[in-house]
Amino acid sequence: MVSAKKKLRVHFGPDNVDIIVPQGENLLKAALAAGVHINAACGGNGVCGTCKVLIKKGEVVGPRSAKISPQEYEQGYRLCCQSRIESDLSVEVPPESRLEVAVLSRETGAVQAGAAEAIATGWSFIPPLNKCCVELSPPTLKDNVSDLSRLLRSLKRRCNLRNVSVDLDIVKDLPRIQRRKGGKVTVTTLVKAVKTKADRRKPTIIKVEPGDTSRKHYSLAFDIGTTTVCGQLLDLNRGRVLAESMAYNGQIKYGADVITRIAYSQRPGGLKNLQRAVVATINQIIDELTSRSRVKGEHIGHIIMAGNTTMTHILLGFDPKYIRLAPYTPVANFIPPARARALGIEVGRYVYLFAFPCVASYIGGDIVSGVVGIGLHQSQKLTMYLDIGTNGEIVIGNSDWMVTAACSAGPAFEGGGIKHGMIAAAGAIEDVDIDPESLEPKLSTIGGEKPKGICGSGLINIIAGLLAAGVIGQNGKFNADLKSDRIRRGSDGYEYLLSAAGETQTGKDIVITEVDIDNLIRAKAAVYAGCQTLLRSVGVSPSALERVIIAGAFGSHIDIERSITIGLLPDMPRDRFIFVGNGSLTGTRLTSFSTDLLDDARKVATMMTNLELSERADFMNSYVAALFLPHTNASEFPTVMGRLERLGKASRLGGRLAR
Amino acid sequence: MVSAKKKLRVHFGPDNVDIIVPQGENLLKAALAAGVHINAACGGNGVCGTCKVLIKKGEVVGPRSAKISPQEYEQGYRLCCQSRIESDLSVEVPPESRLEVAVLSRETGAVQAGAAEAIATGWSFIPPLNKCCVELSPPTLKDNVSDLSRLLRSLKRRCNLRNVSVDLDIVKDLPRIQRRKGGKVTVTTLVKAVKTKADRRKPTIIKVEPGDTSRKHYSLAFDIGTTTVCGQLLDLNRGRVLAESMAYNGQIKYGADVITRIAYSQRPGGLKNLQRAVVATINQIIDELTSRSRVKGEHIGHIIMAGNTTMTHILLGFDPKYIRLAPYTPVANFIPPARARALGIEVGRYVYLFAFPCVASYIGGDIVSGVVGIGLHQSQKLTMYLDIGTNGEIVIGNSDWMVTAACSAGPAFEGGGIKHGMIAAAGAIEDVDIDPESLEPKLSTIGGEKPKGICGSGLINIIAGLLAAGVIGQNGKFNADLKSDRIRRGSDGYEYLLSAAGETQTGKDIVITEVDIDNLIRAKAAVYAGCQTLLRSVGVSPSALERVIIAGAFGSHIDIERSITIGLLPDMPRDRFIFVGNGSLTGTRLTSFSTDLLDDARKVATMMTNLELSERADFMNSYVAALFLPHTNASEFPTVMGRLERLGKASRLGGRLAR
Repeated sequence: MVSAKKKLRVHFGPDNVDIIVPQGENLLKAALAAGVHINAACGGNGVCGTCKVLIKKGEVVGPRSAKISPQEYEQGYRLCCQSRIESDLSVEVPPESRLEVAVLSRETGAVQAGAAEAIATGWSFIPPLNKCCVELSPPTLKDNVSDLSRLLRSLKRRCNLRNVSVDLDIVKDLPRIQRRKGGKVTVTTLVKAVKTKADRRKPTIIKVEPGDTSRKHYSLAFDIGTTTVCGQLLDLNRGRVLAESMAYNGQIKYGADVITRIAYSQRPGGLKNLQRAVVATINQIIDELTSRSRVKGEHIGHIIMAGNTTMTHILLGFDPKYIRLAPYTPVANFIPPARARALGIEVGRYVYLFAFPCVASYIGGDIVSGVVGIGLHQSQKLTMYLDIGTNGEIVIGNSDWMVTAACSAGPAFEGGGIKHGMIAAAGAIEDVDIDPESLEPKLSTIGGEKPKGICGSGLINIIAGLLAAGVIGQNGKFNADLKSDRIRRGSDGYEYLLSAAGETQTGKDIVITEVDIDNLIRAKAAVYAGCQTLLRSVGVSPSALERVIIAGAFGSHIDIERSITIGLLPDMPRDRFIFVGNGSLTGTRLTSFSTDLLDDARKVATMMTNLELSERADFMNSYVAALFLPHTNASEFPTVMGRLERLGKASRLGGRLAR
Repeated sequence: MVSAKKKLRVHFGPDNVDIIVPQGENLLKAALAAGVHINAACGGNGVCGTCKVLIKKGEVVGPRSAKISPQEYEQGYRLCCQSRIESDLSVEVPPESRLEVAVLSRETGAVQAGAAEAIATGWSFIPPLNKCCVELSPPTLKDNVSDLSRLLRSLKRRCNLRNVSVDLDIVKDLPRIQRRKGGKVTVTTLVKAVKTKADRRKPTIIKVEPGDTSRKHYSLAFDIGTTTVCGQLLDLNRGRVLAESMAYNGQIKYGADVITRIAYSQRPGGLKNLQRAVVATINQIIDELTSRSRVKGEHIGHIIMAGNTTMTHILLGFDPKYIRLAPYTPVANFIPPARARALGIEVGRYVYLFAFPCVASYIGGDIVSGVVGIGLHQSQKLTMYLDIGTNGEIVIGNSDWMVTAACSAGPAFEGGGIKHGMIAAAGAIEDVDIDPESLEPKLSTIGGEKPKGICGSGLINIIAGLLAAGVIGQNGKFNADLKSDRIRRGSDGYEYLLSAAGETQTGKDIVITEVDIDNLIRAKAAVYAGCQTLLRSVGVSPSALERVIIAGAFGSHIDIERSITIGLLPDMPRDRFIFVGNGSLTGTRLTSFSTDLLDDARKVATMMTNLELSERADFMNSYVAALFLPHTNASEFPTVMGRLERLGKASRLGGRLAR
């Protein structure tokens, strides 16, 4: 008679999580199932000793490990991966055994409350890049298999690695390396790409080093933006960000946005120049990351990058020509792993670059990475993911389905096409308070410096302020009847003086013009209409959205209330908005930590259905209706309209609309 | 109620083969099942039109194809792959639709009767290299998938290719190529290597060309021997050998055998020199093959090679050092596919070289290829496969198991270490008839030229002749009592004058000495003892062997009867011996035609158990016992002893043994 296994309760501290498991269950598995992230650098084979835990109550059985000192053993320390659960347990995970997942969401300054929720969960810490130190038995006449077979056999026995492939380059060096340190070698394996679920367990040996180098185990995560490139150096043993760095994309000198870059790429040598420029930026960031963290470049084993489709094409040397021409076809969305050094990136020759898959010409790997990073694909919650920049990319969906669309917002959000626009740097006006009576502005600038120009998020705040103060009407035109020296006629028509020449860095007046306001209205209308059209295409009303996740450098600096006021974001409960900063970078980082997410990246890119807005007649209608502050259809913005009325301006606004 | 399908009989001419199949069966499948090889270049998708057959009697149904002209249709021609069998049939396969498998076994001059039996069967003609022409629909706004997705989609629909990977290099060129000839492209895919059965259906795109180039579809098969390199140019559409060429391995100048080559490889630059030398030979052969067949080098898409472990190592640039040093470990037996051009081979940059897997330091890919080529792994017949050269490699087994061993025979079989030894070239004495009374020799030489020396097979025949004539005894010593000017004392002891100075090319006497005879006896004893030890290790008696397959350049020139007389081959019914010539080349060729065999190569290499003879005490005993003509144990050679007795020499021999 087979008796059912006893059910046991395991409590994990300090997470304060309980889980019920059958008697005999492995403790590491139980921890993973409970969502407790424990460091198990060797993959649970009992060789690395990094998964030490303290058994405070109850009983586990398992082999005694040399990694646990007699004193520790007395105290109740055990290797998590080697312990079988035999009774109810209370387990304390000491700091040194914890994967500091919390760190993952902390390092971007822009992360706000609620962001913790928007981090992918449910993945095991099994980086696609793995290091495993094995001691090879010496060859004898009775056991004279090839050097490679000996290595593969040990990997199977000691590291539980099966179905291992091998890069041809490394085979050549095996005889020398395997005989150098008494047969002790460290093998670096990589899950290059996941095409089927089974591929997650099919790594390739990319490097073999003499001796034990398993402690030096790093990789790079990159977000390659049109404007900025962000990189992080990751410690794959500890699941930690060691350093982060950012630089302007060196391609900027060839054009500000993807369209001008693509145009430049069609000149003789243009593509090569662009490719070299971004690689130079990447190399500069790697240089900074390694010198700041004192990690040697040779110990970097992998790079995961995400970028929009054009940036991804250029980095890989693909011709982006047809991204710009209708019907907008990329060369490839799913890109085989490339040797980083073949692209000019200064890392070891064995290092591969994995580029996040793209979905379409204007839905790139950065969006897929962001979606993976925030775990949109893991949640039943109906979510909108919004990345606003020169292009606005929108994803709507949950774990079952996803639709996506891109809309061209133009450069206004990045300060482009604005008379005194500038990028979000020191001296940019980022906020304004307009006195409703005097109509005098109180400015805030980045860094508190003297005003120099207006950045994108500042522009939103200024326009929301002008609207609330009744200086402009819902159509974005100035109320010329108002008595204020600030409101005047300039070379571009009516304008509002934000800062007079004597107070500015430039020594010139800084103004916002009707043309500027018009540009911003067109930009926000494109994004809002894109969201509306996409929602309509799947028959979902905006109020059904449970979360709106805002990603991107611009997104992380905007003010929700003001953005709703001008009609960029939909008027819904404010607690549904979550800022995640650079979601793309989060995705590349988390994927560097988890082969599960590498698999998810493929799935997400495959499941996203791209909607070409230019193909939808209703998009243009929505766009025209959105060319108003906040919107032609006032009922879509009840709280905004209510506030404007409460401010006692409603009647004046009404009057101005007729102008 | 489901009624059982009707059984139908299909007759195929001119093969004159019948098969019973269920009604509705596909005709191409029925042909394959019947062992009738039909050309189906497109893999049975009805697009290439190469599988045309004539339905002489009966009825098939299927779509009408543009590849069949109205006249042909009238006559009864149909596409085999598109036809469903609806009645008993009589089908004629016209010559242009036949895969000329018979050709496969014909081109090596040495193939003798019985060889046809020793060719692998039961494989489908599905080369690992495949060409498929597809017409891509033009991109539209409603269908603007990436260029790569469009290509993959077409391959799936039109060529039934799924799970296709892609080399990064080719992605870059897709936009240009796919737009050049109205979307018509030819895709070359390769099953790079088979690690699991499923991999047989997981090809990689290695090249995409504009337009239809599917008719130009070639590959190379190579046997890289220590002494000679043989290559064949294959037409993969027709399963045909277009040209064959052979050259001495350019490494010969650095040493005659693997041991001296390995020694040379340890000098500074030695390995590189050896690698370059064999590559130069390969390039010379490719040059000859392409110019003779008027095939352009750029249309060669793949190379499959087999060589002994040392040759394989050197070609790939692996250090062979430890092959020579106990415990004799190769660097790797299973070798990832290499870019041929990276090795210096002058072919397209997309061409891969697949090296047959090796088993151990002295059981190489040439043996695995030979075993695959003759289909040893497909037969229940207990078979011994013997490749005799400087080393003798022996395989014993059948479809269930295989054991293998290598014995060092020394250079005697290749004319080395023999006073007037030479390789098997024009002027080599290859046979002799010794008059039992006068003891005068009647010589035959290669090419009928004046004698120049003695080749290995000639040596066997001379010694067998001397033994039969009673000139030497079973111990290999001369009967000095015989009265003949031909038997005399020379600088190396007793010798027999084969050809006097006046009759030779060299202007010097050509003799065979007791030392020469001793060398040959030691060589044949090593091979015979190796076979015996291997048989003993698996508990099989020699008489249980149903086939003895003799491969290799030397093997294809030896005389069975004489080889048994001297005790090189076991004394068994002569019809069990089969010569297959260059078995290794046969294996590489057939594998170029069939992905099934690529899979078999891996299986065969894995299933072979290598026996280190130096580890077996009984090998030395067997070896010493074999140092006699034919053998110390006369009962092992009953027919030889009987004949020697019948020749009336038995008494004289007996007397001489006492000398």
